[in-house]
Amino acid sequence: MTEISESMLEMGAKARAAAQILATATPEAKTRALQSAADALLEAQDAILAANASDMEAGREKGLSGAMLDRLMLDAARLQGVAQALREVASQPDPVGAVISEWDRPTGLHIQRVRTPLGVVGVIYESRPNVTADAGALCLKAGNAVILRGGSESFHSSRAIHAALVAGLNAAGLPEDAIQLVQTTDRAAVSDMLRMVAHIDVIVPRGGKGLVGLVQREARVPVFAHLEGICHIYVDASADAEKARRVVVNAKTRRTGICGSAECLLIHRDIVDGLGAQIIADLVAKGVELRAGEGLQHLPGVVPAAPEDFGKEYLDMIIAAAVVEDVEGAMAHIRRYGSQHTDAVIAEDAGVAQRFFAGLDSAILMHNASTQFADGGEFGLGAEIGIATGKMHARGPVGAEQLTSFKYLVRGDGTIRA
Amino acid sequence: MTEISESMLEMGAKARAAAQILATATPEAKTRALQSAADALLEAQDAILAANASDMEAGREKGLSGAMLDRLMLDAARLQGVAQALREVASQPDPVGAVISEWDRPTGLHIQRVRTPLGVVGVIYESRPNVTADAGALCLKAGNAVILRGGSESFHSSRAIHAALVAGLNAAGLPEDAIQLVQTTDRAAVSDMLRMVAHIDVIVPRGGKGLVGLVQREARVPVFAHLEGICHIYVDASADAEKARRVVVNAKTRRTGICGSAECLLIHRDIVDGLGAQIIADLVAKGVELRAGEGLQHLPGVVPAAPEDFGKEYLDMIIAAAVVEDVEGAMAHIRRYGSQHTDAVIAEDAGVAQRFFAGLDSAILMHNASTQFADGGEFGLGAEIGIATGKMHARGPVGAEQLTSFKYLVRGDGTIRA
Repeated sequence: MTEISESMLEMGAKARAAAQILATATPEAKTRALQSAADALLEAQDAILAANASDMEAGREKGLSGAMLDRLMLDAARLQGVAQALREVASQPDPVGAVISEWDRPTGLHIQRVRTPLGVVGVIYESRPNVTADAGALCLKAGNAVILRGGSESFHSSRAIHAALVAGLNAAGLPEDAIQLVQTTDRAAVSDMLRMVAHIDVIVPRGGKGLVGLVQREARVPVFAHLEGICHIYVDASADAEKARRVVVNAKTRRTGICGSAECLLIHRDIVDGLGAQIIADLVAKGVELRAGEGLQHLPGVVPAAPEDFGKEYLDMIIAAAVVEDVEGAMAHIRRYGSQHTDAVIAEDAGVAQRFFAGLDSAILMHNASTQFADGGEFGLGAEIGIATGKMHARGPVGAEQLTSFKYLVRGDGTIRA
Repeated sequence: MTEISESMLEMGAKARAAAQILATATPEAKTRALQSAADALLEAQDAILAANASDMEAGREKGLSGAMLDRLMLDAARLQGVAQALREVASQPDPVGAVISEWDRPTGLHIQRVRTPLGVVGVIYESRPNVTADAGALCLKAGNAVILRGGSESFHSSRAIHAALVAGLNAAGLPEDAIQLVQTTDRAAVSDMLRMVAHIDVIVPRGGKGLVGLVQREARVPVFAHLEGICHIYVDASADAEKARRVVVNAKTRRTGICGSAECLLIHRDIVDGLGAQIIADLVAKGVELRAGEGLQHLPGVVPAAPEDFGKEYLDMIIAAAVVEDVEGAMAHIRRYGSQHTDAVIAEDAGVAQRFFAGLDSAILMHNASTQFADGGEFGLGAEIGIATGKMHARGPVGAEQLTSFKYLVRGDGTIRA
């Protein structure tokens, strides 16, 4: 066994022990830990910004892109945001111990299904240092211990933020090992985490397709993730023109870099030269590159789509577009090219919306609403650790509640089975 | 691609295609399929019993134990029971499409969380031919396609029962591939199933520790299972004597071969020579071999426990017993030796019961009730495909509802994100 493996197993054992204590921690203690961590974060502002400055310098030397440097960068305002996020998680209801359902049995038994922590969560992320705080806080809220493995680019920033989280745990009398940060940038630590089935109950990767794909391929531990957000928006012949134009433009252009951004527009064949042309003109006017499939290439401002433009996550001011026969055709296209993340239908015909909702199995389906709403905050779940497209356990925005499991509590009065 | 055999991949692809159709099958069609399968089963009674007779003969030649032959054996009464179980699943509420929760957002969005099928379930079982019908029915009820892999001992019986299920599917116009039976007794088919992550969403092993352990070790596909039911029952100093005596005897002796049977009795040190001695005398009088730890070996009729008697699943008229300091001591013992299946506390002190419920993380915790209630039917869940001790997705008795996932349906009115 390598040295790293040994230290990762040690971390795993510490996490398990901390999880045992966290499982019965009071809501008040967890809230206090998060509030104190927010305080500690702001008190340590100078140290955190200095640590971030050294990460930024190293990043520039390594030639990181502007977008990556922007993700890495912290300033006083962003740090305020990180602290505020901690306070928001602190103020959310505590999921642990909540009674999900309860009922009586003819035998006289009273059965409750109550939420329990999952156990130990492993979070593997890239350059955003705020994930250290967000993920640490959400896992703690759900009563889970967490092992955080940040990217090498944000190593010093993450360490400084982690110190504030540990200060919060100390202030609340909770075990320091509840939130551990991997103290090496060696990739071997990631491989170890993916295989530590006895020590980690679920892995949450936060980052680009390269990271998520690696985790999904190699993990023996269950994974909550989405590989890509290839979100489709289908405009039916029954669509209201004004709603359709507003929603499609928002779905593509509000923010192009998020997973809920629309990547493909599907247009009912009967409205290609009417509402379809109008929507495409709107997008082109907004500066969107429109990669048009057959039957749309005569429209002004478009470029012809290549076959590989369908099923592609652009995360940019680009959208693919295709003509479909009807809602069945749209669903066939989405089944073939989608990623089961978020797909939308724009239609006034309730039957069309109903078929779309019943016939597709995306984590999120929208009717007459923008795909950009695919977000835990917008769903009212509070903070989220990510969006999952798998079907096991967690799906859609993963908040504190989805980071829990449950157990049955059964009360009798000397009750025996016949 | 791994070394998965071509025929298993073909089965997997057919299951995926069937699952796609099942996902939108009406509750009526599924009910009709199950009722028709029950009819077909009884109509085919002669053929099924003949198939079973040939399995029984082969089993005797192979020298199967009496217990194994009993599990394998079908007669007219048992076949009636299998048909009745199909009708009961048919009459259960359909979980698919049920709204789990719904709420409105300030943005005007209305969000629903609705149940969807999981997809494709793989069931790997041993000699009981009725599992073919039970597991097939439950998976169908939840809108899942299923690949059944029965033990070689029940090969002909399972094939005959499977034919009745297929007749039911045909009668309801549902795809035959919704319920497929592996047509080979080659163990390689099991290894294939455990690795078919693209084709199977969850594996449910039904059988002894050998089978379940193999599946848990080797599966790349998620698994719903329990390896062992090492159920503990703790009698507190505050226990009501009459309730305690009744419940302990029931927990151990009602049926010893089921996973909810108690395997270890823990006695508060203050009542060893009072209620403790009485309970032990009751068990001994019932013919239970009592393997007593330190502090109990002076009691009449007991034999001394060896260290390996703790944490052992006897599935027989044997129970281990130990003295503990108090409820904390009992919980420490259970954490060390239990299997997170079902554990019970007998106490009148509500605080003791509360600590037991909060401090342990078994799938099922009982207060003043027999561990033998660990059963989907007793929980009111209808039929169960097994009991799971893992913490991901399903836990405790796994009925049709736990064989589902969910998706979010979001309705707006031209709603865009700010």
